Amino acid sequence: MQIYKAPLKDIRFVLETFGYEKVQAMKGFEDYDLDTVMALIEESGKFCANEMLALNHTGDQEGITYDPEAKTITTPEGFKRLYDDYVKSGMAGITQPIEYGGSGAPHPVAIALSEMATACNKSFSMCPGLGHGLIEALLHYGTDEQKDYFLPKFVSGEWTGTMCLTEPQCGTDLGLISTKAVPEDDHFLLTGTKIWITFGEHDLTENIIHLVLARLPDAPEGIRGISAFLVPKINKDGSRNPIYCGGVEHKMGIHASPTCVMNLEEAKGYLVGDPHKGMRAMFVMMNFARLTVGVEGYALGEIAYQTAVEYCKDRRQGRSLNPARNDASAKADNILVHPDVRRQLLNVKCTNEGMRALALWVSAHIDVALHHEDDTIRQESDDMVALLTPIIKGFCTERGFENVSECMQVCGGSGYTTEWSIEQYLRDVRIAMIYEGTNHVQALDLVGRKLTKDTGRLYKGFAKEVFRFVKANKENPDMSEFVGPLESALNTLSETTMALGMKGMADPEEAAAAASKYLTLFGLTTLAYLWARMALSAQGREGTFYENKVKTARYYFSHILPETKGLVEVIGAGKQNVMAFEAEDF
Amino acid sequence: MQIYKAPLKDIRFVLETFGYEKVQAMKGFEDYDLDTVMALIEESGKFCANEMLALNHTGDQEGITYDPEAKTITTPEGFKRLYDDYVKSGMAGITQPIEYGGSGAPHPVAIALSEMATACNKSFSMCPGLGHGLIEALLHYGTDEQKDYFLPKFVSGEWTGTMCLTEPQCGTDLGLISTKAVPEDDHFLLTGTKIWITFGEHDLTENIIHLVLARLPDAPEGIRGISAFLVPKINKDGSRNPIYCGGVEHKMGIHASPTCVMNLEEAKGYLVGDPHKGMRAMFVMMNFARLTVGVEGYALGEIAYQTAVEYCKDRRQGRSLNPARNDASAKADNILVHPDVRRQLLNVKCTNEGMRALALWVSAHIDVALHHEDDTIRQESDDMVALLTPIIKGFCTERGFENVSECMQVCGGSGYTTEWSIEQYLRDVRIAMIYEGTNHVQALDLVGRKLTKDTGRLYKGFAKEVFRFVKANKENPDMSEFVGPLESALNTLSETTMALGMKGMADPEEAAAAASKYLTLFGLTTLAYLWARMALSAQGREGTFYENKVKTARYYFSHILPETKGLVEVIGAGKQNVMAFEAEDF
Repeated sequence: MQIYKAPLKDIRFVLETFGYEKVQAMKGFEDYDLDTVMALIEESGKFCANEMLALNHTGDQEGITYDPEAKTITTPEGFKRLYDDYVKSGMAGITQPIEYGGSGAPHPVAIALSEMATACNKSFSMCPGLGHGLIEALLHYGTDEQKDYFLPKFVSGEWTGTMCLTEPQCGTDLGLISTKAVPEDDHFLLTGTKIWITFGEHDLTENIIHLVLARLPDAPEGIRGISAFLVPKINKDGSRNPIYCGGVEHKMGIHASPTCVMNLEEAKGYLVGDPHKGMRAMFVMMNFARLTVGVEGYALGEIAYQTAVEYCKDRRQGRSLNPARNDASAKADNILVHPDVRRQLLNVKCTNEGMRALALWVSAHIDVALHHEDDTIRQESDDMVALLTPIIKGFCTERGFENVSECMQVCGGSGYTTEWSIEQYLRDVRIAMIYEGTNHVQALDLVGRKLTKDTGRLYKGFAKEVFRFVKANKENPDMSEFVGPLESALNTLSETTMALGMKGMADPEEAAAAASKYLTLFGLTTLAYLWARMALSAQGREGTFYENKVKTARYYFSHILPETKGLVEVIGAGKQNVMAFEAEDF
Repeated sequence: MQIYKAPLKDIRFVLETFGYEKVQAMKGFEDYDLDTVMALIEESGKFCANEMLALNHTGDQEGITYDPEAKTITTPEGFKRLYDDYVKSGMAGITQPIEYGGSGAPHPVAIALSEMATACNKSFSMCPGLGHGLIEALLHYGTDEQKDYFLPKFVSGEWTGTMCLTEPQCGTDLGLISTKAVPEDDHFLLTGTKIWITFGEHDLTENIIHLVLARLPDAPEGIRGISAFLVPKINKDGSRNPIYCGGVEHKMGIHASPTCVMNLEEAKGYLVGDPHKGMRAMFVMMNFARLTVGVEGYALGEIAYQTAVEYCKDRRQGRSLNPARNDASAKADNILVHPDVRRQLLNVKCTNEGMRALALWVSAHIDVALHHEDDTIRQESDDMVALLTPIIKGFCTERGFENVSECMQVCGGSGYTTEWSIEQYLRDVRIAMIYEGTNHVQALDLVGRKLTKDTGRLYKGFAKEVFRFVKANKENPDMSEFVGPLESALNTLSETTMALGMKGMADPEEAAAAASKYLTLFGLTTLAYLWARMALSAQGREGTFYENKVKTARYYFSHILPETKGLVEVIGAGKQNVMAFEAEDF
């Protein structure tokens, strides 16, 4: 049972509510008014819901096939044709620069497309998804020659890209990387082993371009001695570059997405950016990737939700406790009459919609940060993106996993079977909490880098914006049910931030011990702000959709936001009881 | 990577702390002093950790094979031999009546065995696990003839049993059952379709006995018209009874455990208990089954925890933030130095150990409820079992799923691969939240039946016991860090119970809307009580094990118990925002 309807109305509502007109008013986006943007999204949504979804279950069941002799990978039946159609659809380059063949649409379009593609076929969508980050890295740090050679192929989708960071001895701690790069003529020869390489090898395109982290012979130890290289599978002259897939991982989910061990045996590579400054290129690449991984959380939450609702409408068990709701035409009522079924669906609905608003709102800030003519506004948006990226990645993937699990629960035993596909969504979504930096790495990024930057400028900017909203709506009687709790939540977050900062300055272990829960607290508070804004936006408008927005906001405030109460206490408990044990006590 | 060490020391500590001597002092258990019991558990633990664990991963990968022509099921390679060894081990009947060939050991032994078997091979252990409930039902409601014929075979493990409740149109709502039973001679002829039948068909034993719910021709409509029947696969005369497996489910996990559609085509059945009173037999069977399903939660949490700890000890990434912990002999420290890794492991450790204490403590109450000579004590124990069974089922399975997921997170990408098996534990444990009555059904049982019974006698008994403990230890300075928060948690639970009772009486939808979160609140408070008792018990004793018990109790109070804060608020929010939507709004 695979169903999906692109959440077009919701996307439009979010874009309207969170000032899309500011994006559209900027130079370069004149052609992208809201109607145009929505038409683009709608068209891509159809492609996802039809072609991509059709191969999601079969792709999972069949999985990829690795040939250890030829070191090649065969993707599931139909994937090659699907990829060709994807390239033809123009989706790959929709937000990419026009000079390299893209359509130059703003970032919210990319986020909307990313959601729909992930919902309909997460494994498949991971392949073109990676190219996006590579393009960003090249635009920032590539030479003109590199840009001219590689970018048009990435933008069209003709070639795909990978990120080769991890090695067997290092994942989170990239300072331990040992892959070597030795200079030769105009290039380098790279030797080493990389693991966890998504679509490191496949049969969808003629060429694959790997962004590889490695060390030059004169590299300093640790993270400051890492350089970035582009390593193509097929060289310019058509010869095979010795970067081979040496094996694949067997995983809980994303079965149609190959996760490769890549062996480099003096493979030709081209330096991107300055020597020893590879982490900069990698971070450019990763920042957007982290945003889209966050999107994966609510994308799979959304398709699981739609599936669960479909199940509930059909399934009849028991009677409503409220006789007025009894369906006299049948022996039992459909299970949507039961308060707990509603509660579970609403948990998913309100957080999913909140997370979608979060990601789209932040993605609009990316465009403003890149293109606005006013320096201050650019900086403010850049700060917001930097602050909220780890929260989107960490919060949305954790909540996404919980949401898919909740949808499974609503469907009972059927949810556990492959027939309804929710079990696949649950297996597929789980990886998002791990890759692109585990969620705790996000929390450390938030607490250790983003909060501390320029004596808290990023947090102050966020708090100022929320406070401005609170102040502006305090006297509005229709908004008092939201504004009061929001103000209190903001105060709690600010106090917690301050206390954590003080403790963490004195003892970094204090910050690390509380970081993950702090990220969740921040995420919940941010969603409260967005829901309050959405409620305000919806209150002025007529129709069930808008009435439901206000109701969903209410549900978020009464049933989700209270989670912050326990979090604050746990954050305050500090490291003492965490660090009281010796290693051998575990 | 599959490792397992039976938690013998912890089991012994729990039995000592929670008054096992009261069980042993009873008539019939003279032979079962603590040393004997622990020796039994240790021996079975070895069997689980060696023979059962060896076939866990292979069983998952191979799965079962269904032959639609022959309507037979082949279990994975080695399962038949494993089953024979299991029968020889005597584990099947260890707590069963001596008169039918069992060893007559007390219930905590069954719970300990259940934990170890589930941890090492959940799929396999589900097969003999079901027989236990069938024995209970027969002991209560079977005729002497039925007992003499069936029980020795169940107790030895020679035959296995199933529970046939669900039909395509009814799961939670058993009143919709339509399978028919027509009298003929000394038996009945049953016709209908049952689904979700665990080990409904397999190749491990010669015979399978199904406990089937069906309707007699004169049955009243709904739940009061259901009778229970024993339906053997092979009749007494050796002929094949027409109860056939018509198909199997494809599931997220428990791949080595067949989940069957069973078709009855005038299959011979024997009435158990009175006509139309089948639900009584089913509840006897289900109560113990619910307890053991709760055990599944922490059983898989335990093996996942052990695996994650092993991974952490080996894995080196980054440096401790506390230079004193840096391992100068290597380029990086093992990841146990990181506060967040510890936090995650401690979340699992403290709840796992707490849930083990809960289940073992309640299982001792089962023996007291059955065998104590004092009527009042018997009733008090029976009340405690009735009250806490839904909490064990609901709370331990939900937390177990979270715990296995947390263990996966600690292991990063490796946790997501089949290599470390945690992904299998996560897939396998997920079903426990669904079957034997979904967790919300448990919550409704708790709120709608257990709390309301005899104007709250069950809750009052529980609160009295906790309050007695608080009072007795209030002046003990070593216990003040636990007793104060426990008293406050108990007061919160009591107030919430009272408020929920009032609201629920006026409007049952109010009770239903809050029931699931209330169950979690109750579980968290109960674990606080058990941890306080364990801390007291450990404080008097020397050695790292006991020091760690106190530390773990502290961690529970500082890092887990605070979750109650948010729950209370959500429970208080009531049904209003839950029921504000129309069915078509979802």
